[in-house]
Amino acid sequence: MADRPTSRRSFFGLAGSAALLCTIGGEEVVVDSPESLDRADAAAARVRRPDAALAQDVPQLQPQPGGVRREYWIQAQTHRWMIVPTRRDDWHNRRITGKTTYRAYTYTEMTPGFAAAKSGPTMPGPTLHAEVGDVLVVHFRNADRALRQAVTMHPHGVKYSPEYDGAYMGEYTHAGGFVGPGETFTYQWECTPDSVGSWPYHDHGPNHTLNTFRGLFGMIRIRPRGEPMPAVHFALFAHQLSPPVTGLPRNFQCINGRAYAGNTPTLRSRVGQSVELTAFGMDNNFHTFHIHGHRWKDPAGQYVDNPSMGPNEHVTARFVEDNPGRWLYHCHVFSHQDTGMTGWYIVDP
Amino acid sequence: MADRPTSRRSFFGLAGSAALLCTIGGEEVVVDSPESLDRADAAAARVRRPDAALAQDVPQLQPQPGGVRREYWIQAQTHRWMIVPTRRDDWHNRRITGKTTYRAYTYTEMTPGFAAAKSGPTMPGPTLHAEVGDVLVVHFRNADRALRQAVTMHPHGVKYSPEYDGAYMGEYTHAGGFVGPGETFTYQWECTPDSVGSWPYHDHGPNHTLNTFRGLFGMIRIRPRGEPMPAVHFALFAHQLSPPVTGLPRNFQCINGRAYAGNTPTLRSRVGQSVELTAFGMDNNFHTFHIHGHRWKDPAGQYVDNPSMGPNEHVTARFVEDNPGRWLYHCHVFSHQDTGMTGWYIVDP
Amino acid sequence: MADRPTSRRSFFGLAGSAALLCTIGGEEVVVDSPESLDRADAAAARVRRPDAALAQDVPQLQPQPGGVRREYWIQAQTHRWMIVPTRRDDWHNRRITGKTTYRAYTYTEMTPGFAAAKSGPTMPGPTLHAEVGDVLVVHFRNADRALRQAVTMHPHGVKYSPEYDGAYMGEYTHAGGFVGPGETFTYQWECTPDSVGSWPYHDHGPNHTLNTFRGLFGMIRIRPRGEPMPAVHFALFAHQLSPPVTGLPRNFQCINGRAYAGNTPTLRSRVGQSVELTAFGMDNNFHTFHIHGHRWKDPAGQYVDNPSMGPNEHVTARFVEDNPGRWLYHCHVFSHQDTGMTGWYIVDP
Repeated sequence: MADRPTSRRSFFGLAGSAALLCTIGGEEVVVDSPESLDRADAAAARVRRPDAALAQDVPQLQPQPGGVRREYWIQAQTHRWMIVPTRRDDWHNRRITGKTTYRAYTYTEMTPGFAAAKSGPTMPGPTLHAEVGDVLVVHFRNADRALRQAVTMHPHGVKYSPEYDGAYMGEYTHAGGFVGPGETFTYQWECTPDSVGSWPYHDHGPNHTLNTFRGLFGMIRIRPRGEPMPAVHFALFAHQLSPPVTGLPRNFQCINGRAYAGNTPTLRSRVGQSVELTAFGMDNNFHTFHIHGHRWKDPAGQYVDNPSMGPNEHVTARFVEDNPGRWLYHCHVFSHQDTGMTGWYIVDP
Repeated sequence: MADRPTSRRSFFGLAGSAALLCTIGGEEVVVDSPESLDRADAAAARVRRPDAALAQDVPQLQPQPGGVRREYWIQAQTHRWMIVPTRRDDWHNRRITGKTTYRAYTYTEMTPGFAAAKSGPTMPGPTLHAEVGDVLVVHFRNADRALRQAVTMHPHGVKYSPEYDGAYMGEYTHAGGFVGPGETFTYQWECTPDSVGSWPYHDHGPNHTLNTFRGLFGMIRIRPRGEPMPAVHFALFAHQLSPPVTGLPRNFQCINGRAYAGNTPTLRSRVGQSVELTAFGMDNNFHTFHIHGHRWKDPAGQYVDNPSMGPNEHVTARFVEDNPGRWLYHCHVFSHQDTGMTGWYIVDP
Repeated sequence: MADRPTSRRSFFGLAGSAALLCTIGGEEVVVDSPESLDRADAAAARVRRPDAALAQDVPQLQPQPGGVRREYWIQAQTHRWMIVPTRRDDWHNRRITGKTTYRAYTYTEMTPGFAAAKSGPTMPGPTLHAEVGDVLVVHFRNADRALRQAVTMHPHGVKYSPEYDGAYMGEYTHAGGFVGPGETFTYQWECTPDSVGSWPYHDHGPNHTLNTFRGLFGMIRIRPRGEPMPAVHFALFAHQLSPPVTGLPRNFQCINGRAYAGNTPTLRSRVGQSVELTAFGMDNNFHTFHIHGHRWKDPAGQYVDNPSMGPNEHVTARFVEDNPGRWLYHCHVFSHQDTGMTGWYIVDP
């Protein structure tokens, strides 16, 4: 069935696809067109390394008794990414026309020494797993050659000293807050008892809004020592790929960088399995996380099926699966659901 | 006192009254004018019944020991609805001028066999009550002759198999996800221990965003077996009737389909009564629910007087009344409060 | 480094800086320009005192045994306020150019009898402290001569009869809901066991949206009898100073009336101290509250580092400080963070 064309003006005018105002190093840039996107990247490329960020005298952390140093090798890179690879909305049995490819920025897990990529590009980046008492050691490389700007990894939930905050802070920046093109930095983060749970990590460099929105995000999952993993677990990031971010003439409400059921993750489980779904907001909007046919206890002990989350906030649904079938999961902001923030959850008997 | 006229442009430009982007069957329609509203309905009328939705082989559910099958007969229909029937804002002692009537779509409770309406049109539809162990049996009829499109009832909170999900899912649609004009379908939903609480139901047919926003929503309330009802209980839906939905030149922030105190529900109780107020978000926005002069414990045990809720999320205020007088209740998003999302709560001594 | 100029149109078009629709007494005013701001104030100045508000027969409240009457003298006044007094964004090491001064409206704590101001203007107003069993007695004076309109103090969390609600309610207004220029009113609010916690107070007069957004807000903190205060405690209000409120050509996302790190409060503590940070939303938007390097238990017992809050909702972070350094705190709505809603939290060893 044919789509009615929608003018660029219409899409720009839609709720939530407004211009982005970015503060990038010493400049403020309104990103509302492909040209201003280039201007933002040029501004980011002009940000010089703060003097304080030259110091590489960082602490070496040891795990608690019984803990280990869990090492990850992670590389940031831009590449072409298809938002709607099937060119279909499988929910509405509908063809999606027009361009859906943009320059994404993602974290890729590498083998030790950055020898090789463990997989093709993924969005989100790899989930970092650890237990209480461990030290997460993340060797990070900014491997991007195209955008010539510094990026970082900033974690939530784990304990870190300012050296490992991974945030650009102007003249107060530490080395880990400015990892330039071709450079590496090793973050060391402690997993303390109050780190238990799931948390986001994301870029916090000088161009953090744009680069996080382009795809520089992932999940950290810290469990009590010895606690087994659920049989099935997924990390879902609800985020908008808007015209200012993609340069495309229309707005996509995405889960993990994809829009529309059949492109967003199709989740799968079996009756009887323990299931854990963690959903994050990762844009400027507030979202909810709804799964058809399922309810679960929230942290306050109340049964819910559609809790809300803000940017970089999350909700976790945990349940033992008992309801076979094909289900929709989606953000319940109706306009988000209608513009792609929907997927399938298939439960086998 | 006279109102200053406000141009259509101004109202369209106000936060939250932006165009709606709807995905309707095989088409994407930007609804931003009365003409595009007609176009959306025409697109919805073109959606054909998916083949899978022809199968009527649905399971018959029996209640748990001690439970019953609670039957409701509910009909969906459009009709003219006045958003401001008193033509006054009783809070500001102010006349509301201009057109406030639009084509609403609501659920009406009927006597058995759809023989007669139990009341005139209401928004929300009837509250469905049941206890744990019951099966809610909802005989649903799409009785609308004007818009010629399929609608459904999709519940939250109760347990249902895919046949009773009530969601249009393209080629995966079950019969209950596509109830065409003049057709009926009987939903059967289980009330399990994790169903206890209050939940929304709403349209999830091929034109669900527009038709839910027009008024196709209501509340399900499941209580533990034998638990008495509070002396006073109300269901309140916070939702926007925006120009794209109504075709009217201005935006209304509503509670239960009405805007401005004296039109929105005037709630009433007496000192000493147990009171339960459940407030839902039912549009694209996030809201809060505030009652003057009252506090209550949230599910985490913290006293609150203004919790927030997302679309299809709810908060429930439960307290024993101890504070006589005339009180305002309202959403604390200031612009929502100012454009109608306010009402009276009157406590008699 | 130089800023690129951004056109007024661009700033007006940014998410969240849309026109304000205010209902002021008998008039509805769209505030989207300096001229319409004047028109809103003129409308507010025309609101006459409702007849019911003439009655001054208000109850005199006595504290519970062991409690006291805690008296405050508070005055509301407008004055010029600098949003970016340092003219720098200390986070990005960046100069902020252009006008940043507007007419603010704030609450100032006075010595008894309104003899003298206890300090220069502050935003928020003074924190009102009390214990369970106390009566908060607030002598309030509308001391503003410029805007010639009624203002009030409306509290959350404490218990009050309608006479002390502090809300303009048209013909149902009590005396405390309309405090005209030069007038005084004494509010009496009971601190009950369900008042424990932190709560906002703000204007709820006939022009409450505009005047609250201009700065008429503050915090009430009620503690159990005899409970000691934490060593370090701060009240933080996340709010937008948008063009309709300030008449300035650009949008500022503020904390306590200031935008950008170095202007927003620089919080300070020492390792080992008990810290309590309470963050409120105080505009039309939803926000989150994030502190780098810290986690704390929310009311449900879950560790968080970035909870969300709606307008007039709050979150409180309580922890024993263990992580020295210079940290960012900010709203995690990326565009809010980038336009000023960020500050420093410095922990001394």
